[in-house]
Formats: sequence, C-alpha cells, structure tokens
Amino acid sequence: MKIAIINGPNLNLLGTREPGIYGNQTFDAYYDHLKKSYPQVEFQYVQSNIEGEIIDALQKFGFAVDGILLNAAAYTHTSVGIGDCIKGIDAPVIEIHISNTFSREDFRHRSYITPAAKGLIVGFGLDSYRLGVESILSAK
Amino acid sequence: MKIAIINGPNLNLLGTREPGIYGNQTFDAYYDHLKKSYPQVEFQYVQSNIEGEIIDALQKFGFAVDGILLNAAAYTHTSVGIGDCIKGIDAPVIEIHISNTFSREDFRHRSYITPAAKGLIVGFGLDSYRLGVESILSAK
Amino acid sequence: MKIAIINGPNLNLLGTREPGIYGNQTFDAYYDHLKKSYPQVEFQYVQSNIEGEIIDALQKFGFAVDGILLNAAAYTHTSVGIGDCIKGIDAPVIEIHISNTFSREDFRHRSYITPAAKGLIVGFGLDSYRLGVESILSAK
Amino acid sequence: MKIAIINGPNLNLLGTREPGIYGNQTFDAYYDHLKKSYPQVEFQYVQSNIEGEIIDALQKFGFAVDGILLNAAAYTHTSVGIGDCIKGIDAPVIEIHISNTFSREDFRHRSYITPAAKGLIVGFGLDSYRLGVESILSAK
Amino acid sequence: MKIAIINGPNLNLLGTREPGIYGNQTFDAYYDHLKKSYPQVEFQYVQSNIEGEIIDALQKFGFAVDGILLNAAAYTHTSVGIGDCIKGIDAPVIEIHISNTFSREDFRHRSYITPAAKGLIVGFGLDSYRLGVESILSAK
Amino acid sequence: MKIAIINGPNLNLLGTREPGIYGNQTFDAYYDHLKKSYPQVEFQYVQSNIEGEIIDALQKFGFAVDGILLNAAAYTHTSVGIGDCIKGIDAPVIEIHISNTFSREDFRHRSYITPAAKGLIVGFGLDSYRLGVESILSAK
Amino acid sequence: MKIAIINGPNLNLLGTREPGIYGNQTFDAYYDHLKKSYPQVEFQYVQSNIEGEIIDALQKFGFAVDGILLNAAAYTHTSVGIGDCIKGIDAPVIEIHISNTFSREDFRHRSYITPAAKGLIVGFGLDSYRLGVESILSAK
Amino acid sequence: MKIAIINGPNLNLLGTREPGIYGNQTFDAYYDHLKKSYPQVEFQYVQSNIEGEIIDALQKFGFAVDGILLNAAAYTHTSVGIGDCIKGIDAPVIEIHISNTFSREDFRHRSYITPAAKGLIVGFGLDSYRLGVESILSAK
Amino acid sequence: MKIAIINGPNLNLLGTREPGIYGNQTFDAYYDHLKKSYPQVEFQYVQSNIEGEIIDALQKFGFAVDGILLNAAAYTHTSVGIGDCIKGIDAPVIEIHISNTFSREDFRHRSYITPAAKGLIVGFGLDSYRLGVESILSAK
Amino acid sequence: MKIAIINGPNLNLLGTREPGIYGNQTFDAYYDHLKKSYPQVEFQYVQSNIEGEIIDALQKFGFAVDGILLNAAAYTHTSVGIGDCIKGIDAPVIEIHISNTFSREDFRHRSYITPAAKGLIVGFGLDSYRLGVESILSAK
Amino acid sequence: MKIAIINGPNLNLLGTREPGIYGNQTFDAYYDHLKKSYPQVEFQYVQSNIEGEIIDALQKFGFAVDGILLNAAAYTHTSVGIGDCIKGIDAPVIEIHISNTFSREDFRHRSYITPAAKGLIVGFGLDSYRLGVESILSAK
Amino acid sequence: MKIAIINGPNLNLLGTREPGIYGNQTFDAYYDHLKKSYPQVEFQYVQSNIEGEIIDALQKFGFAVDGILLNAAAYTHTSVGIGDCIKGIDAPVIEIHISNTFSREDFRHRSYITPAAKGLIVGFGLDSYRLGVESILSAK
Repeated sequence: MKIAIINGPNLNLLGTREPGIYGNQTFDAYYDHLKKSYPQVEFQYVQSNIEGEIIDALQKFGFAVDGILLNAAAYTHTSVGIGDCIKGIDAPVIEIHISNTFSREDFRHRSYITPAAKGLIVGFGLDSYRLGVESILSAK
Repeated sequence: MKIAIINGPNLNLLGTREPGIYGNQTFDAYYDHLKKSYPQVEFQYVQSNIEGEIIDALQKFGFAVDGILLNAAAYTHTSVGIGDCIKGIDAPVIEIHISNTFSREDFRHRSYITPAAKGLIVGFGLDSYRLGVESILSAK
Repeated sequence: MKIAIINGPNLNLLGTREPGIYGNQTFDAYYDHLKKSYPQVEFQYVQSNIEGEIIDALQKFGFAVDGILLNAAAYTHTSVGIGDCIKGIDAPVIEIHISNTFSREDFRHRSYITPAAKGLIVGFGLDSYRLGVESILSAK
Repeated sequence: MKIAIINGPNLNLLGTREPGIYGNQTFDAYYDHLKKSYPQVEFQYVQSNIEGEIIDALQKFGFAVDGILLNAAAYTHTSVGIGDCIKGIDAPVIEIHISNTFSREDFRHRSYITPAAKGLIVGFGLDSYRLGVESILSAK
Repeated sequence: MKIAIINGPNLNLLGTREPGIYGNQTFDAYYDHLKKSYPQVEFQYVQSNIEGEIIDALQKFGFAVDGILLNAAAYTHTSVGIGDCIKGIDAPVIEIHISNTFSREDFRHRSYITPAAKGLIVGFGLDSYRLGVESILSAK
Repeated sequence: MKIAIINGPNLNLLGTREPGIYGNQTFDAYYDHLKKSYPQVEFQYVQSNIEGEIIDALQKFGFAVDGILLNAAAYTHTSVGIGDCIKGIDAPVIEIHISNTFSREDFRHRSYITPAAKGLIVGFGLDSYRLGVESILSAK
Repeated sequence: MKIAIINGPNLNLLGTREPGIYGNQTFDAYYDHLKKSYPQVEFQYVQSNIEGEIIDALQKFGFAVDGILLNAAAYTHTSVGIGDCIKGIDAPVIEIHISNTFSREDFRHRSYITPAAKGLIVGFGLDSYRLGVESILSAK
Repeated sequence: MKIAIINGPNLNLLGTREPGIYGNQTFDAYYDHLKKSYPQVEFQYVQSNIEGEIIDALQKFGFAVDGILLNAAAYTHTSVGIGDCIKGIDAPVIEIHISNTFSREDFRHRSYITPAAKGLIVGFGLDSYRLGVESILSAK
Repeated sequence: MKIAIINGPNLNLLGTREPGIYGNQTFDAYYDHLKKSYPQVEFQYVQSNIEGEIIDALQKFGFAVDGILLNAAAYTHTSVGIGDCIKGIDAPVIEIHISNTFSREDFRHRSYITPAAKGLIVGFGLDSYRLGVESILSAK
Repeated sequence: MKIAIINGPNLNLLGTREPGIYGNQTFDAYYDHLKKSYPQVEFQYVQSNIEGEIIDALQKFGFAVDGILLNAAAYTHTSVGIGDCIKGIDAPVIEIHISNTFSREDFRHRSYITPAAKGLIVGFGLDSYRLGVESILSAK
Repeated sequence: MKIAIINGPNLNLLGTREPGIYGNQTFDAYYDHLKKSYPQVEFQYVQSNIEGEIIDALQKFGFAVDGILLNAAAYTHTSVGIGDCIKGIDAPVIEIHISNTFSREDFRHRSYITPAAKGLIVGFGLDSYRLGVESILSAK
Repeated sequence: MKIAIINGPNLNLLGTREPGIYGNQTFDAYYDHLKKSYPQVEFQYVQSNIEGEIIDALQKFGFAVDGILLNAAAYTHTSVGIGDCIKGIDAPVIEIHISNTFSREDFRHRSYITPAAKGLIVGFGLDSYRLGVESILSAK
C-alpha cells in the first residue's frame, strides 16, 4: 500500500504560523508519528509553495500510488489547475484541511478541488491526515 | 464512550433512493456492522424527516454523549436552527455526508452546519460514518 | 387509478386566508367536488404545516399510487428535502399552485420542487388540481 | 368557443429537433389530433421564429378569441415585448412548455411572460397544450 | 386582554445556550416575572423547535387573542411559511429578538417575518418581550 | 428640417393598452397634432413590433434626417442591436419614453440605448415626443 | 434621567408627508404628549435634514444624556458616518422607525445604524418613540 | 407661473470643471439667458453642495411654485432623502442632467430620484433645463 | 463542399460603421475575395437585422450545407433562440466575430451561441471568416 | 509650499473614539507636531462632519494650495460628490486613512475617492498624514 | 517567420487526460505534424505547469518571435499576471483552446487573457493550433 | 535597520512595459537611487514571476528583517497564499503599488494582501517604495 501526502503553501511553517488556528506541532513531527502508526503503508511526502509544483507532484504520484492526501492550503480556493490535474490522474485524491475552513473568511468556502476529489476531511487538526489514511485503507 | 448518530430527511430510504448516488446498502445493515466493529462504543440512533425533531435529538444527546455524527441531509443547506443548536450544546458534532455534495447542485455547496461543527467528512459513502467514529475516539 | 393530493402549510386556511389571492372556497368543498367528478379515481388526501410530514406523506404514497398532486405552498421555495424525496420515490409528482406565484414576491419564483417534478401547473385557482388529475389520467 | 395557439421559434422543427428533450411527434400531427378531440372549439394556429410576429399574432387574436395558448419557446426568457403585449390585450393567455424548463439551464428559469399570463403549464410534453385547452374550457 | 407568546427553536435552551449572546436567565423565570407585571393580561405560551408547529400555534392563537409576540429565532431567516401564516390570521404579530441580529452573521439580516408583522423589536434582551406587551396594550 | 419618429412594439395599441400607464390618446391623433404644431418640420413615422425592422428604419433614416426620436418600448431593455445601430448612423437619436420607466419593474431600469443616444426624455406622456422635437430644433 | 431625540430628514414634514405611510399627526404634537407622559424624564430634541448635523447632535448628546432615540430616516440606509459616530459615543442609541421599513423598497432593508445601536424598534407609528423611552427607563 | 431651479454639488464649478463633459459655459450666464427667454416665468434658483440643504430647498419651494427643475448631480445616485422629500411635497419635480449619465460609470446609472420625479431629461447639455421649463409650461 | 455564411444585425453597415472597431472594408468586397480564394467551395450568404430571419436561415442551411459561419453580432449576447436552433440542425456552426468582443462592454462577454457551436473564432478582423472556412475544410 | 488637510466625520473625536482602532492621540496634538516637523510648509486645516462642507473646502483649497491630504472617513465609502469634486479642482489630492480600512467591514473596501485621487496611504496611524506630506514634497 | 507555442498546466498529459474532452493524441505527435506542415515557420515550444514560468516564456519570446500561440489552460481563468504580461510584450498573442470552454463549468467562461490577446480560437481540438498559425501567417 | 523589497510578476519589465501606466524608469536604476538615499538601511531585493517564490521570499525575509515592501503586482488580486504567508511571519509588510490600481479594471480593486498588511501605499509611481521605507523607519 503506497500513499502520497502533498502539502501546499505555508504548511512548512506549521507549528510556528498562527498557532491559534493551526496548532503548534510541526508537520515533520506529526509525519514521523504517522509513519510509525501505519508500518504497512509506504509513505511519500512533498511540500511546495508553488502551485505548479503541486501539479507536478500530483502527476508524478497519480500513476504510482494507491491514494493521495492533498492539503492544497491557499491554492484550494484559487487553483483551477490542481482540480483539472486530479481529474487527469488515476489515484484517488482525498482533500485534507487542518482547520475548519468553513468557519473562516468567505473566500475559503470555495474549493476548486473538492468536486474532483474522492472525499473531503476538514477540521480535525493534524488528525485529518490519519483519517485520510484510514479512508484509503478501508477503500481497498 | 457514547456516540449518537442522527440522520436527516430521506436517509430512511437509503438503499432504494437514487442508488447511483447513495449506494444500495440500507442504513440499518450498515449500522449493525458499525456496532459490531466498535464494541467499546455505546451507540444511539435517530432518524427523522422533520427539521425540528433533529434539533430535539441534538438537544437530547448534546448533554449526554461524547460525540454526535450528524448527517442532516437536505437540512444541511437550509437549516439555521440546526446550526444554532450545535453551538448551544456540549457534545462535539461531526458533519457527515455520504455523497460528494460539492460535485452536485450549487445549493448543496452551502452548509449552515459546518461553521458550528467540529469537523466535516464528505464523500466516502457509508464509510464516512466510521471515519467520524474514528475521529471521536482519537479526540479522547 | 389511485391519486394522492398533498397540501402544504396554511392551505388548511383556504377560504379565509387572503381571499384576494386564494379565493374563498375551502379545500374540503373543492375536494368533494373533485371526487365526484372523477369517480374512477381513488383519491387520498393529506395536509400538513410541517415540512417533514410532507416528506413522510410523499414516502408513503410514493410507492402506492399512480400519481401525486403536490402543492407544497411556502415549502416550495425553501425545501431541499421535499425535492430530494420526489427523486427517491416511484410515483410521478405534479407540482400545483393556486395563485400565479411568478407575479408575486421574488422569493416565490424559486422552486426546489419543479426540477424533480414531472410537470407544473400554476395559476388556475383550485382548477389547477383538476388539470393535474387530467394530466395523470392522460399519461396512463 | 375560439382558441388560438401561438408557437415560437424552432417549434416548427418539432419531431426532428432534440427528440430526447422534445419527443419525435410533429406539431402538425398533434394539432390534427387536438382539433378532433375538441370539435366544439374553433382553433387557429400561428408559428413564427420572429419575436415581433408573435406580438403581431397576440394583438390580432387578443381581441378575437376566448383564450390563447402561447408557447413562446426561447423568447419566453428574453422578450419583454411579448409580456407587455399580453397585458395589453383582452384574451387570457396560457403559457405552455413541452419540456420541464426548470430542470434545464438557469437562463430558462426566468420568464417575462408568466407574470402577465393567466396560468402556466410546464413539462407534460405535447399534452401541455391539451391541458391548456381544458383550462380555458373550464374557465367559461 | 389576551396575549400569546410563541418561541421558536432552541429558545428552550435559554439561560444555558451561548450566554454571551442570550444572557443566563431562563425563559420560564422571565415569563413568571412578566405575568406578575401585567396582571390584567391573560398570557399563553408555546415553544417548539418545529417550524410547522409554530405555524399551528399561529393559526390557533391568530383568531383568539389580541396580539402575538413571536420570536421565531432561526426560522425568522428561512421560513416563508410563517410569514405567509401571519398574513392569514387576524391577530397582530409583533416580531421579537433578544439579541441584535443585525450585528451578527449576514444570513440573520434577512427576515421573512418582518414584512408581514405589525412591528419589530430587536436587541433589548428579554426586555424585548415586555416592550412587545407594551405595544399591544397601547394599540388598544 | 427633417425628423423621423420610430416607435417600437405595442405602441400601435396606444390609447387602448393599459390606459392607466399610457393614457387613452392614440398615437395617430397625437402625431397629427404634432405635425400641425411644427409646420417647419418634415416628419416621417414608422412603427414596428419587430426588433430588426426598427434597426432597418434607423439605418434608413440615419443618413437622411436631422434627428430621430426613438421610443423602442420593450426593446429598450433587451436590444443590443438597436444600441449598436445608433452608434453606426449619422443622425442624433433622442430616446423617448411615455411613462416613467424607472418607477416600474427593475428590468425596465436597464437601457441598451441610452449610452448610444444623444439624450433621454422620460415620463411626460406623449409630450415627451414634443420635447424631443424641441431638443433637435434647438441643437441646430 | 435625560433622553435626547434626534430626527432625520423630512421628519419635519410629519403629518403632511405621505400620511398613508406616516400618519397625520405632527411630531410637535406627539412630542408634547410624550413629555407630559414622562415627567421624570428631561427630553431634548433636534431635527435636521443634514447628515452631518445629525452626527453633530449625536456627538453633543452622546456624552451628556442617558439614552438617545434616533430616527435617522433616509440616512439610515446610506450613512456610514452616523453608524461610526454611534460607536464613538457613550450614550446608548435606540434606532426608531415609524413605518415598517422592511415592507417597503429593498434599499430600506439595509441599515448602517442597527449594528451599532443598542436596539431597534420598527413599525409602531409614533408609539415607537414611547417604546424607546420605555427601553431606556427599564435598562437603568 | 413660478419655477424653481435647484442645483446640487459641484455645479457651481460649471464652466471650469471637466469641460469635456460639462461644457465651458457658467450656469449664471445660462440662467440669465433662460430668464430672458421666458419672461412670463418667475424663476428662483438655489445651488448647494450639501445634501440636506437641497432637501431644505425642496421643502421650501415644494409648496410655493408650479414646478421644480432638480439637477441633484452626485446626490442623484446616493440620496434616499432627496427622493423621499420629492414624494412629500406638492410641486412636480423634473430631474435634469447635463451630461449623459448612462454612458458614464455604473454607479451613475442608479437614481433614487427618478422614481419619485414626474419626468427625466438627460444629456442635452444646459438645454436640458430649458426642456424642463417647456415640460412644466405645457403641463399647465 | 458547401459553406453558408450568415451575418447578423448592422453587419450590412460594415465599412462605414465605427471603422475604428470594424475596419473600413465592406463585407461584399471581402466576400468576393473569399470566394475567389476557395474556388472548391460553394458559398451561400445571408444577412439580416431580424433575429427570427437568422433562425430561418439556420434552419434552411442547417440540413443542406457542410458548415455554417455565423456572425450573429448583437444577437450573440441576447438570443436564446439562435442557440436553440443550432442544437436542432445538422450542420456544424462556427461562431465568428470580427472585433475582440471580450475587450469591449461586459454584456458582450456573454454568448448564448458558443455553448451550442462547434468552435469560436474572435478578433482577427474579416480574416476570422477565412479561418472559419479553414476549420470546416480541415474537419472533412 | 502650501498643503491643506481636510478631515471628515467623527475625526474630531480622535483620541477618544474607539482607541483600539484609531489610537488615543488627538488630531490637534498631532497637527502641532506635524507643523513643527515641516516648517517650510504652510498648512491649513478643516474638519467637518458635513459632506457638502468637505466639498466646499476642496473647492476653496483646490485652486490655492500645492496639495491636499483628504481623510474623508465615512464619506470615503458613500460620497460620489467628493470624488466628482476632486476631478474638478487643480490641486492633487492624497487620500489618507489612519486604520487599515481593508481589514474591516466590506462596505469600507469601496472608495469613491481613490479613482480620482493621485495616491492612497492607508493604515499607518497618524503617520499616514506625514507620509502624505512627504509625497507632495517629493512630487515638486 | 518565427512562432512560439506555449502550453499551460496539464497539457503534458494530453492524450491520456480526460480523452472524452481532449482527445487521445499527444501534443508531441501533433507538434511534429504541425512543424512538417509549415516548413517555412521556425517553431519554438514550451510547456509548464507553473504560472510564473509561462510569464517567463512570454517575456522571453515576446520580443523575439512574430507571434505566440498561448494555451494557458487552467490559468486562463485565474491569471491576472499572464494577461498583464501579454500587454507588456511586442509579439501578438493568439489564445488557443482545444475544447469548447464555454460549454463547460461557469468558471471556465472567464478569461483574463482574451482582452489582452489579438484573437481567440476555441473548440477545434488540436486543429485550433493550426488555425492560430494560419492567422499569424495571414497577418504578415 | 534591514528592509527587504519583493517585486512580483512583470515588474522586471519596468521601464519598457506599458510606460503610460508604469513610467519608463527601470527598477534597477530606481533601486540604486534608493540605496544611496538611505545609507543607514541594509536593503535586500528579490523579483519573481512565480507566486510560490514570492511566498518563499516572504518566509525567508519574514524572520530576518525589520520590514518588507511588497509589490505583488498581479498576484495582489488573486493570491490567497501570499496573504496567508504575511500573517505567518514576523516582519511587518507594506503593500506597494506604482499605479493607481483603483482607477483601473474592477478585478484590480480586490486585494488578498491588504487585510494582512500593516499599511498600503498606492499610486505615487516609484516614489511609493520610498514612502514605504519612510513608514518603516518612522515605526521604529
């Protein structure tokens, strides 16, 4: 079982950026924890602040893994290209958000990604990623 | 650990209603399966087609259980009262949807419930409920 | 031939409520007249002010009659759940309105029911119901 | 009893145009059938692709017949002039649509004609015309 | 002098629900106080979380009392049916809100009730009800 | 001095159509009166219910007269083509309305003609035409 | 107890202006009546047609009285500055309207004042002012 | 015959302000010319940059003259109060604009004054005022 | 190979109308040139200012030629009926525009024709027609 | 070098009004400090709560100084007249805001002044004025 | 003659991605074919998933070639920066789309590129590129 | 004192790109001049056409300098990610624009950056940068 995790812009600041909203754990620490919890899964991880590099990563993983967890962060709300890419690849994509985007600014209520994604998990903090892993495992 | 599941309008037709969108398993069959999978959880279940009875159920469970899985179905998109109720009770509420509501009609993209909910799980078929249980268990 | 008639909120006030818009005949009087005009039809009738009870009635009749005349009144413009229900049942539903809703307030121009209904009859006073009966008879 | 039927643009293609939406019967065949069904009615019929000729026909019939069945087709959604004309003539106008316009594109949900019409009949295929005749007969 | 008070969804939680917005007095305690302050008035009181039951109550009181104080809470912003009902009954209806709904979410700025109501009293906490009583007394 | 008057749809019904809005004088009677009042002006007059014939008339008069009074009636609010034509001809066009279109339905508040017209005269009944003649005379 | 009343544009015409909407009592006559009814209150009164003078009056009374009744009339719907001023002064401001502004034109449904006001009283005719006095007295 | 002319903000700059749009004649020069052309009319003139002073002037002239020419300039598009005032006075008000406001910015296409005015004259330069005088004379 | 060209309103003024936008060549001159360039193509040409005549022409050519070049000009942005017609005929329709409609007024950005057309060619001056011919030739 | 500063409504409350947003320094104190910092500049200062008096001040200074700093406060978002005036005068106008208006209510995001102003300085507290002075000095 | 072709995000998947919409030919195969068809043209080609790299390519080619064919794909609908760049370079840019974007989702109907482009070619499959080449050749 | 300047897309074309809007000085020349004017400041400079690289730069400088001048150019209006980044870093960010963006296209009136920025300076040409430096110096 292979799962790729793709994180979008500013998620490399996790743990320092707006901890009131995003918590104060770094993603690296969480990622180590996640890998240990699911030894049967082979994880791969990419983070980029560049929209097109997220498309590159989706294209690369999209024909090679069993599922992709995508937290496109800010690009969720503006990127037609990421949504298009999801429709063009084979692997199912689970859209992940740490915070409850629907209780924040209006422009965060629109997602170009959800219509193309298999499922959406929002608001459980970093545990959103683990629930995404669970959903891929159970779909097998 | 006590978890309540509240299902809104037309979910009693599950298995017969629009199987192309909602699948052909009845909720009762799934619910039996779910209870067996989590013997450590005490489940309670209510279904109603009446908006106000969903509010009644939320008020009843909201001070008595550890978490609520709410699939308000059509009322998701129109009920200010259910959203208000969630803010007034103690138990965390997880919003659940079987289908990918964001790839359907525009009026299904608005939820009065999500801003008040702890988290949102969309599009995994009936497995969305199990992921909701997982999220409540892991939050303890 | 079995036909069910379902009337929504405030239609029990027919004959007294805003006679300038709705006329001054009670629905009971009209219903007697209708039954006599179509002796070959077995009619059933439900009126409720509660949205969920209209859904209950649609679910009950939806697998038992040859056609349903639905005047959802105010819920026409706000009820996603009634529209969803129509899509989930077998019997064809004819949407009925007594007054010309399109010459009234803007919010009465939107119907969540019409896209799911077989047909729409608007503005003929109580005669709208008879035309609905005619349409079901002719579709047989 | 005199009834005029006015058909708008592209309805002369009925039977060949988009049969999935409009069926494959020509209007002429249906019209013959209709005239035979109501021998007591003197029918008149006009079809035009030109908005202004529909206004001309409404003005001509509007002071000479007992009722008009108007299927303005595409002009329904854009013609202020046809709506204005209906208000200026004596004969009651019944708006007719073959398909369920409310389950199609958004721009087909707006009608400049309905607020001026006596009633609206939508979605019964060609039988919509017969129901219109019924409504005029019963209003006498 | 007979006055009916009708309270909508979640107002049974008053005193515990979001005390920062709604205060921490229960409605029962306030109601006792109100009855003592106006011994010349015969009060009646209904609370329901169900939209259609509020319509039922309006229909019941609407021909039997001198005035109705209606705090429809969440249904204020979504119920066409309650607005329709007010227009169909005899007793004047005063719309009451405890909090300043216009300083909250945008969807709380729209009321389907106000255009049909005699008057509107917003933002005085529970004292809004007493001002409503005053307005009915002075209108006699 | 040559002036053309072009009247749009339904203005041939003037005097009979909605006299509460448009008055009960026919345009012919008014036109005779107007010609007598301005013997120094050579008038020409066209009325049509067809949008394209109004364009034809504008093209014909647009290179032959000193000014055009255009009451496009309903086409005012929907015709891009008439607006385009005015920009393509030489003669100045004065937009005329008998009633106060801005105190009527919202869709009558938009004009595709005014931005291309030299001036706009609204609401003076038939006297609007005379004021238009005055404006052309005084511009010479 | 000191209470200021500030009236906005055209309220000096009260009694003559659109009596169908505003009644035919002058404000002066009502004001005399009000002062006699509440001898324990020291009233002050300003009327102006000028937006900025209403701001001047709010600034003057805002640090000197126990409460202000403000009927900003037309400026209610357009004045950001009056709303800003209310937030900058000490005295609570009660927004008053004589007619039911929510049953009139759409542009009267927006208020820049309500979000900054303590409370809102609409639709009771001149009695709206007395209810405002009551609210200030009871808040003491 | 008495006619009042009321000019709004920045019209005192006429002749120097944006001559490409407004021309280079001062209003005083034009006014002298106008008075000479209509010796039978007793003119009165007010210009103010203050919205409330325009209301004051309308109230003053509104019961004393036979007609008012009002060029409210920028206040045309934002002043509810001026529109309200016109409805409250006796004299008919003719709305005047020098430039073609409908070929300029979108916010100049909305007028709060037109629905209350008797008529509207737009785009004839200063000659718009003379046409307004003509319209008042001919209405007598 | 048969190709029909249909030109909409005001295109008969080409060469004189707004040459800054449309150039100063007449369509007749261009058409001669085009016919000479493609001797293997049998061309047919219709121009009309009347929306319904464009529908007539589409119906006539739509079952007789290999492709249609349609420059509906102003009707592009308002004609539901032309769009409907294209869906009802057999020949592919190429939408043609001489100027770059997307750099002009907002109302020129909407086309009812493009969704029904095979392709769209915009902004190349009269050469847009030749590119349309090329596209039909290459599709064979 | 002559510079005028014009302050709009409620800025006379600076130092006491909402200090969390506007700080607690009075404008007078700041103005003294500013004059001392720029002895080479001859300053003039006007504050008014009246929109039309701000127009008066702009007209007075607009032909007499080298630059104007305008903080129109609330009128920024509603005054077409101030924007028009800026276009009609000679002196360049710099729009100044103390707080970050774009992080506040939506209605504060629209400015009728910025399109007519030379530049815009927002959010630096009272230092915004000094930066405005700097910009005028450097433009010389 | 030098022509550059720039392809945007996901066009490297052409031939595999959503073949129902985009066909099953790879761009490389098509490009070889195109180069052979126009031996007199020196082609250059760039594809990138990164918005900013498309801007880089436009800047590089924009002063070096005779024309650019730009299929910005998803960035068409969201990139202000690409539109700005086109305005800043010398070479004419032809906007190309393979599918008929106007018959797809609403967000694909807006282009930030078309207003800055010389022309637009939509919906001819890969032949859209050849038509673009034709347009550049014929403009020389 | 350390200040970073970050320039977004197409600003590397400054001096050649649309000189009517942006002037004809290159940024390099201006930057040299700026460094000489403020010898006490240690400047750093980055320009990129890639949205994500601007985020990278903000993250790099955001914990290392005393203030950042950010001219995000086109990304100002579309980048949620840049706005998010500003909220996640320590250094204050001043938003800079050379031209008056508010007098240009509507889509340039929206900024995702301003709500997160400390201040905004618009329209002073390249001098906007110097005013930004001044604001950072004075905030120390």
